[in-house]
Amino acid sequence: MIQTDILIIGAGPTGLFTVFEAGLLKLKCHLIDALPQAGGQCSELYPKKPIYDIPGFPEILAGDLTGNLLEQGKQFEPGFTLGERAETIEKQEDGSFIVTTNKGTQHQAPIVAIAGGLGSFEPRKPLIENIENYEDHGVDYFIKDPEKYRNKRVVISGGGDSALDWSIFLADIASEVTLIHRRNEFRGALDSVEKVQELKLLGKINLVTPSEVVGVVGENHIEGVTVKKGEEEFQIDTDFFIPLFGLSPKLGPIGGWGLDIEKNAIKVNTVDYQTNIPGIFAIGDVNTYEGKLKLILCGFHEATLMCQSAYKIINPGKKYVLKYTTVSGIDGFDGTRKEAPKAVVQAIV
Amino acid sequence: MIQTDILIIGAGPTGLFTVFEAGLLKLKCHLIDALPQAGGQCSELYPKKPIYDIPGFPEILAGDLTGNLLEQGKQFEPGFTLGERAETIEKQEDGSFIVTTNKGTQHQAPIVAIAGGLGSFEPRKPLIENIENYEDHGVDYFIKDPEKYRNKRVVISGGGDSALDWSIFLADIASEVTLIHRRNEFRGALDSVEKVQELKLLGKINLVTPSEVVGVVGENHIEGVTVKKGEEEFQIDTDFFIPLFGLSPKLGPIGGWGLDIEKNAIKVNTVDYQTNIPGIFAIGDVNTYEGKLKLILCGFHEATLMCQSAYKIINPGKKYVLKYTTVSGIDGFDGTRKEAPKAVVQAIV
Ligand SMILES: Cc1cc2nc3c(=O)[nH]c(=O)nc-3n(C[C@H](O)[C@H](O)[C@H](O)COP(=O)(O)OP(=O)(O)OC[C@H]3O[C@@H](n4cnc5c(N)ncnc54)[C@H](O)[C@@H]3O)c2cc1C
Ligand SMILES: Cc1cc2nc3c(=O)[nH]c(=O)nc-3n(C[C@H](O)[C@H](O)[C@H](O)COP(=O)(O)OP(=O)(O)OC[C@H]3O[C@@H](n4cnc5c(N)ncnc54)[C@H](O)[C@@H]3O)c2cc1C
Repeated sequence: MIQTDILIIGAGPTGLFTVFEAGLLKLKCHLIDALPQAGGQCSELYPKKPIYDIPGFPEILAGDLTGNLLEQGKQFEPGFTLGERAETIEKQEDGSFIVTTNKGTQHQAPIVAIAGGLGSFEPRKPLIENIENYEDHGVDYFIKDPEKYRNKRVVISGGGDSALDWSIFLADIASEVTLIHRRNEFRGALDSVEKVQELKLLGKINLVTPSEVVGVVGENHIEGVTVKKGEEEFQIDTDFFIPLFGLSPKLGPIGGWGLDIEKNAIKVNTVDYQTNIPGIFAIGDVNTYEGKLKLILCGFHEATLMCQSAYKIINPGKKYVLKYTTVSGIDGFDGTRKEAPKAVVQAIV
Repeated sequence: MIQTDILIIGAGPTGLFTVFEAGLLKLKCHLIDALPQAGGQCSELYPKKPIYDIPGFPEILAGDLTGNLLEQGKQFEPGFTLGERAETIEKQEDGSFIVTTNKGTQHQAPIVAIAGGLGSFEPRKPLIENIENYEDHGVDYFIKDPEKYRNKRVVISGGGDSALDWSIFLADIASEVTLIHRRNEFRGALDSVEKVQELKLLGKINLVTPSEVVGVVGENHIEGVTVKKGEEEFQIDTDFFIPLFGLSPKLGPIGGWGLDIEKNAIKVNTVDYQTNIPGIFAIGDVNTYEGKLKLILCGFHEATLMCQSAYKIINPGKKYVLKYTTVSGIDGFDGTRKEAPKAVVQAIV
């Protein structure tokens, strides 16, 4: 059982910044995310695109923002359960909560912060009979660890940035990369399209278009895919089939946790963003209140106020005085200390 | 009369970010600040110190944050009335407000956003008889434009960073710089203290310590200061006397504008941070509500929500749909456009 002070569901920008604010209050965090990496929408949907309205950054790539937030919280040593969806929550007699994922991992904490954004990102799956039997047996909807595909044959299908970028990436790792798309046209960043073009000419990516994967074959593990091109059908032998048709967020299991829901979002107060269940907070895109804006900078503020209340719940009666980071510095849980250079008092002679 | 959409009182981080958020909604801003430069506490009190809790910046100097915020709002062409204190406010028949400064400059806007922080920064003045007669006649408490002192004689008094830094800066501009302090010890950044030491040895700064300026002399304009060193008193001829004893913020005239005040801060609601007077908002350190934290990141959120309401007041009945900067880009009032590179749709052959 993983134990922590604040269990954060969702490792998007809001969840990541919570780690930092909690750390200032000496509270430890653990994050659960359905995606294999941190960053939420920023890293899954538009990592290479610039955001212009993060205060203090006239422009920052969404992926860089994620990197910076991870760096900012690093010294507070957050734990991560990635690639798993928080499924159930149970309140214990001592007031704490146990949250269990779809893979059975259990987490216990006195405070739960739902920073689930638009919901847990679920892959759009192709309509192929029996494909669910091959999930985790050669069919992957996410690439968690590219090393898994070293010297293996891989078939990727899809026509967007993910399909393009992973084909490029795996071309150097896998023994064989086949990219299948139902059109000749791909939609993605110009340099990705050009790179795939180049790798195709070098024979490092097999391009099969316009085509569709219509079947999967194999005993216990996938052994090949059936491809339809026009009227023709043929088989491509492979060790892995990775359909990358995008992800769609679903509020999912959280919708059944007994929280007040309005328009697919969790209702909270505007004092500390607590939900109708004491001890459960909702911050960032996942919450709603009068005047709510689904913006990253609002999630940062909500996370900060929420941590103050979490502190009071965890340390009842203890008085907390807000300290400026500039004045007090930062003591990491990893033993590091950051602080501003102190003024000197010195005679000039 | 200066006219604008949102008149912002206070050019600290909160006021500066308001310019950007208002600009996204096509609203123009004008800022008034008692200080001669933008940045509020960040640039006046700790420009060279690192802040650790601005989301996305593991560390940023307060002065750099100010610079970034100015840069981020630049394309929305904010106006500035600097070095003047907003003194009075009058509601007009058409619902707009007229705000007049201590120097008589008038500003008119349908929306007033008070982002006054801890209040308008007022210099701590030395207790010298008749000194007020020389203000603006050779006695300056702020340095607005260093060029004013080119080839002039300058006496600075004070023992902190401002006194050290301006002595260093003016050593290259003024014909003569005298630094007077009542102790031999100075309190400031190590490199500033060392630099003054060096300039003293080079004869570019006259250091008079431990001493105090006890009088000012001159006809209409200052001509010299009377200095007391131990039992001895003598005169130093000078064209300017600049006492730099620090600034203390005072809520000041805003306290008398009919706003609900609690513990020196303005009470607001948490939907749009509007005060008890419709059309007047209070954001950043200057406001208070249940759970309020006087942090920069909170001011950013408050400014953003406030601008949404300002938009609705200025454009009654007009429907506004939130657009992501990443998706819609930014059209500056100066004709510039920023936008994310678009995805291409291209065949791979
Ligand atoms: C194309 C695009 C452009 C955008 N541009 C901007 C912009 O310019 N400025 C701006 O401020 N915002 C922009 N946004 C919105 C911004 O990305 C969101 O406001 C932000 O990502 C919300 O952060 P979050 O941490 O609250 O949620 P998210 O980023 O959505 O992260 C939530 C995470 O929670 C996980 N999760 C949810 N439920 C579960 C569960 N049950 N178990 C496990 N994990 C779960 C999800 O998998 C996800 O990773 C844009 C969004 C898009 C799609
Ligand atoms: C040493 C120090 C360290 C800090 N460290 C941190 C930190 O690590 N993190 C953090 O988040 N915060 C920190 N803070 C606090 C932070 O600086 C403030 O929260 C922030 O500056 C508030 O911004 P603001 O724009 O609301 O107000 P301010 O920065 O106070 O700006 C308000 C401006 O309004 C002007 N003004 C007020 N009244 C009038 C008037 N009537 N007419 C004209 N002008 C007027 C003032 O002159 C001032 O320039 C620190 C503060 C200090 C002093």
